Amino acid sequence: MKKLINELDDVVNEQLEGMAVAHPDLLKVHFDPKYVYRADAPVAGKVAIVSGGGSGHEPMHGGFVGMGMLDGACPGEIFTSPTPDQMYECAVAVNSGAGVLFIVKNYTGDVMNFEVAAETASAEGIPVQNILIDDDVAVKDSLYTAGRRGVGTTVLAEKIVGAAAEAGYDLDQCADLCRKVNSNGRSMGMAITSCIVPAAGKPTFDLPDDEIEMGVGIHGEPGQKRMKMASADEITTMMVNEILDDAAYTRTVREWDRENNEWVDVTITDEPFEAGDKVIAFVNSMGGTPVSELYAVYAKVVELCEARDIQVVRNLIGPYITSLEMQGMSITLLKADDEILKFWDAPVNTPGLRWGV
Amino acid sequence: MKKLINELDDVVNEQLEGMAVAHPDLLKVHFDPKYVYRADAPVAGKVAIVSGGGSGHEPMHGGFVGMGMLDGACPGEIFTSPTPDQMYECAVAVNSGAGVLFIVKNYTGDVMNFEVAAETASAEGIPVQNILIDDDVAVKDSLYTAGRRGVGTTVLAEKIVGAAAEAGYDLDQCADLCRKVNSNGRSMGMAITSCIVPAAGKPTFDLPDDEIEMGVGIHGEPGQKRMKMASADEITTMMVNEILDDAAYTRTVREWDRENNEWVDVTITDEPFEAGDKVIAFVNSMGGTPVSELYAVYAKVVELCEARDIQVVRNLIGPYITSLEMQGMSITLLKADDEILKFWDAPVNTPGLRWGV
Repeated sequence: MKKLINELDDVVNEQLEGMAVAHPDLLKVHFDPKYVYRADAPVAGKVAIVSGGGSGHEPMHGGFVGMGMLDGACPGEIFTSPTPDQMYECAVAVNSGAGVLFIVKNYTGDVMNFEVAAETASAEGIPVQNILIDDDVAVKDSLYTAGRRGVGTTVLAEKIVGAAAEAGYDLDQCADLCRKVNSNGRSMGMAITSCIVPAAGKPTFDLPDDEIEMGVGIHGEPGQKRMKMASADEITTMMVNEILDDAAYTRTVREWDRENNEWVDVTITDEPFEAGDKVIAFVNSMGGTPVSELYAVYAKVVELCEARDIQVVRNLIGPYITSLEMQGMSITLLKADDEILKFWDAPVNTPGLRWGV
Repeated sequence: MKKLINELDDVVNEQLEGMAVAHPDLLKVHFDPKYVYRADAPVAGKVAIVSGGGSGHEPMHGGFVGMGMLDGACPGEIFTSPTPDQMYECAVAVNSGAGVLFIVKNYTGDVMNFEVAAETASAEGIPVQNILIDDDVAVKDSLYTAGRRGVGTTVLAEKIVGAAAEAGYDLDQCADLCRKVNSNGRSMGMAITSCIVPAAGKPTFDLPDDEIEMGVGIHGEPGQKRMKMASADEITTMMVNEILDDAAYTRTVREWDRENNEWVDVTITDEPFEAGDKVIAFVNSMGGTPVSELYAVYAKVVELCEARDIQVVRNLIGPYITSLEMQGMSITLLKADDEILKFWDAPVNTPGLRWGV
């Protein structure tokens, strides 16, 4: 294994130290327990947006801490959920009194730990809400996940809900918007190569020299199928079709009832895309795939959307939710109404995403 | 070979098509001959900044076209110099009358072709100047290059000189500033893996599973030496020491004498770094190395600079001058005075670099 690391046990700490040294104007790092938070937190009167998950998906989440996006991010070890104490202490650090929204990718460990953290924070008088991101159309009930996995829509949700919080949305409004973004967003990924988790020291999976994994997860977990390498157009077409053909998706998730201090089951249905929709198209590198290849994919995404009378009105192209050095890419389409577009366009100032400032 | 491409002969065109579709607000693409240019070019009264070189180093150069950086970029085939007609026609398209500065990375083909383009443009009445970037301390007179290679300082020069042009610098002032940035900047790179040029279909070089190439070029051309994989701290220390210990470097370059319409030899000396310097530190991914690893490197860069009483006052961390999917990184240190910092901080709006707008 060849990686630019020092001690195997210290990989995440070293990265966090580098971030703290590089971006003192934007963020601070707390090391025990580990969380990244806005340099100016808590921001008076503002709902705090917090996310987190295993490390290895950089710049998500720590790289999205800053004005207009996240107030806090809780990094686990690589591809490992952070712990409830990280989430709780982060919430305490960033809560201004207006409450904390946890944006939670749908992986069993993340979901469970953010629930524990929400209960603890709530018991301490911090208004909290957990909203799940479960946008991966590739598989259902896979390794690490009951239901669909949370992938690319997470980045878009953090940007959009972060901007709404900045604009004065209260906790319920932020939660509603985050639910909407999740319901409007669908993603699918593919892998060309595996990545190597430092602690494992060997590829997470074996992929022959002429095969790809369609529907791969961001931890290298299995997707839909292995297939022979195909052209960028063929691969993009398969993925966009999966996303655009995806039927209504109904499931029940647990949300926190702040009035009664209990978890309640909420049934959510994501409606399929339809002609006339406007979308934000997000073409993401899994890490090792160069941006040049993403542009070829993007051109095809636009063509395929237009053929269905779906208009791509914004885009994000680059490595934003990665799997270490994995080669491959994911496509996310997010149906965007005026509210979503307004907050997408709003200023953001983070290490990983910056505009308008 | 597994890459997200369609036709081998069409790789660069497809990428350019994607860029044109993705960023119509920022840039346009001309296909025959190929160049990328600002959507609002020519910008009245402004010196036009043009660069170019082989493709495969994205986002450089096309991804740096936009307000505050490049007016035009000429992409060659992958790792292949663009042709004089691309450069000349791009210059015609972006020249407002205030002239064109060609920022040229020191590779034999690039230098020769930009010289031909300058002569042609000059004969057509366009004021031009070619400024060379030759900042790679690793090797001298290597494959493709007489003298030092042009690498990371190119990105910083395009940002800084682009901002100066935006602020109203005339052609001579832009050329002077570009010369200063080049003289103040030093870089070194290393490779963990090779990349695969699509047309070749196999790795550019072979690197054993436990070895790295120190001083590698951005085309995978040989560096100083092969060595066993070491820790991030050890590798970073070797590279920063090479940069900071680099002695005064004197060489003669050819520059265009606009009054007499002839090439003149200009002798340039780069002074070494010294205690008290302020620097911009640029830690660059060669493509396949994740940003998380760059942060560990960055923390060490700062520590090493501080030990010599050199202060890192700005940074850029990410994949900006890449070698396709190569894993590895480069470090660039640029001694920064007030003029350089002012233009570094100025707004920029390109696909690859954006702030202040």
